[in-house]
Amino acid sequence: MAVDAMGGDHAPQETVAGAVAAAREADVRVILVGDQEALERELDRLQLGDLPVSVTPSEGVILETDHPIQGMRDKPRASVIEATKLVQSGQANAMVTMGSTGAAMAAATMSLGLLEGLDRPALGGPILMPLSTTSLIDLGSNVDCRPGQMLGFAAIGVAFARKIQNIQEPRVALLSVGSEEGKGNRQVREAYPIFKDSGLNFVGNVEGLDLFLDKADVVVCDGFVGNVLLKFAEGMGSAIGRWLPGVLKAHLLPSVVGSLEGLLESVIDLTEVGGGPLFGVKGVVVIGHGRARAVGVAGAINMAKRVWEADLVEAMQSELGSLRSPVKE
Amino acid sequence: MAVDAMGGDHAPQETVAGAVAAAREADVRVILVGDQEALERELDRLQLGDLPVSVTPSEGVILETDHPIQGMRDKPRASVIEATKLVQSGQANAMVTMGSTGAAMAAATMSLGLLEGLDRPALGGPILMPLSTTSLIDLGSNVDCRPGQMLGFAAIGVAFARKIQNIQEPRVALLSVGSEEGKGNRQVREAYPIFKDSGLNFVGNVEGLDLFLDKADVVVCDGFVGNVLLKFAEGMGSAIGRWLPGVLKAHLLPSVVGSLEGLLESVIDLTEVGGGPLFGVKGVVVIGHGRARAVGVAGAINMAKRVWEADLVEAMQSELGSLRSPVKE
Repeated sequence: MAVDAMGGDHAPQETVAGAVAAAREADVRVILVGDQEALERELDRLQLGDLPVSVTPSEGVILETDHPIQGMRDKPRASVIEATKLVQSGQANAMVTMGSTGAAMAAATMSLGLLEGLDRPALGGPILMPLSTTSLIDLGSNVDCRPGQMLGFAAIGVAFARKIQNIQEPRVALLSVGSEEGKGNRQVREAYPIFKDSGLNFVGNVEGLDLFLDKADVVVCDGFVGNVLLKFAEGMGSAIGRWLPGVLKAHLLPSVVGSLEGLLESVIDLTEVGGGPLFGVKGVVVIGHGRARAVGVAGAINMAKRVWEADLVEAMQSELGSLRSPVKE
Repeated sequence: MAVDAMGGDHAPQETVAGAVAAAREADVRVILVGDQEALERELDRLQLGDLPVSVTPSEGVILETDHPIQGMRDKPRASVIEATKLVQSGQANAMVTMGSTGAAMAAATMSLGLLEGLDRPALGGPILMPLSTTSLIDLGSNVDCRPGQMLGFAAIGVAFARKIQNIQEPRVALLSVGSEEGKGNRQVREAYPIFKDSGLNFVGNVEGLDLFLDKADVVVCDGFVGNVLLKFAEGMGSAIGRWLPGVLKAHLLPSVVGSLEGLLESVIDLTEVGGGPLFGVKGVVVIGHGRARAVGVAGAINMAKRVWEADLVEAMQSELGSLRSPVKE
């Protein structure tokens, strides 16, 4: 596993600690990519023993505030690029980063290429865990999608649900404002018949409420809608966390109000995306949360291991290939 | 106030009880519209004294499951239609219904007409109270909006914020996937410069997270996105309500777990829209929640009274008229 050790809010301390934990507990060989001196300093502080952790040097980091493509041009040896190249060359099975999502997508598209039938990678997954196991895709990289693009997201989501969630016949739905065919905006109305003819297990339209009611396993939406929803969910989780203490105090004994901290944390964490695979590139790339600490980093590395072992990329290509309707119009 | 006494899940018992409560406590004259016999039976059970509550007969109800336009054709004397006609004829200052939103919009558009510059009514308001006072508009009646239509929503939202929320210079924003100009889908990118030139207090794009962070008073979005968000918020509120007991039990003394019912109720209620005015028609129409009980019905009637007293409809027309950019392209 190649780990972009310089990406994320708490790099390199927490990325190194998380990678070492994954090497220790999950039997993973880790290549840390980043500033050699800084990484070796971090490693010296941890008791490595004979753990399979090595360092590959890189120069610079593409930040969240950088424009991804411009960042790639300005910092051609940035950690996320070097880490991705290890996957391209076969030295690593997967790449994990907590850094800029845009940079990871750009680097992965450039070095690894896209699966046939897609013109851009996609983000998705069960973002509402533990409230719901339904996957939502796309979450932001694709806006103004053509219906055929959305069908590609569906195929990718189906492969994820089968391989990672062990759902045999994943139910696919379109996110809309009413369940009947013909409800929705032009995009959804155009996508509906294409989904119906696709050979997928298409169950029709679902609404925002249905994401929490197990009505489908894979819900497809335009990346604009998905990204608004993703951030809305995060905002609502935090807002409830801030609002809850006042309400709880009115309902509970004063003696227990002090124990609420952990509860609020869990409400706030509710909507934070852990490590999610980048969908649609020819290689395993997992993007973790920028705020992740060591546990989150180790979790993202474990996710990458699962994705690799499940042959997810091949499964996605095969789902895309077996669609009855054309993905490209 | 004309009240559609037959609309809503708990009509006519709760609609009549709520209307009587409003007449008693809020000094409102109420005309109940519905099945005369049923309404008089309900009124007999309540001690009216000399409260100003009267009955106007109607025939039939347009249900949530009916297609609004078809319902209007099949039931031309339905309660929501007759109640709206009382506003049209000047016998009532406002109409309140807990029934089908689509039917209320159709009846109001037909009988009262639209403000100049709009081609359809809109739904909006501070749907995230008490988590946020930011208004979101539109919530579902307008999909695939032209940028000029969205500017109309902004003007309407500004009038609401000024007149009902007492915000002097309401901040207007577009909902998007990034704050910079140029971020978003085609619709938002096209709307941005029009908003900038509109003379409104436009603060740029906001993201889903920002709806909870007091970044703007009026956030404009396509009705497709707004409706997905509205239902998502409702679903997430309920899902947290179902999920919380398990988490709370782990964090709190067993002796207080029993007192959680009220807490959960309040989390679930969080995102239920109370009475919201229908925006854009030439008259005061307030649509309450179908599940409303007497308290909710009285609340919707009070909202109608406030909207009438604040001259909201005139303020909306004047905001629409003072836009610098054209609303119609």
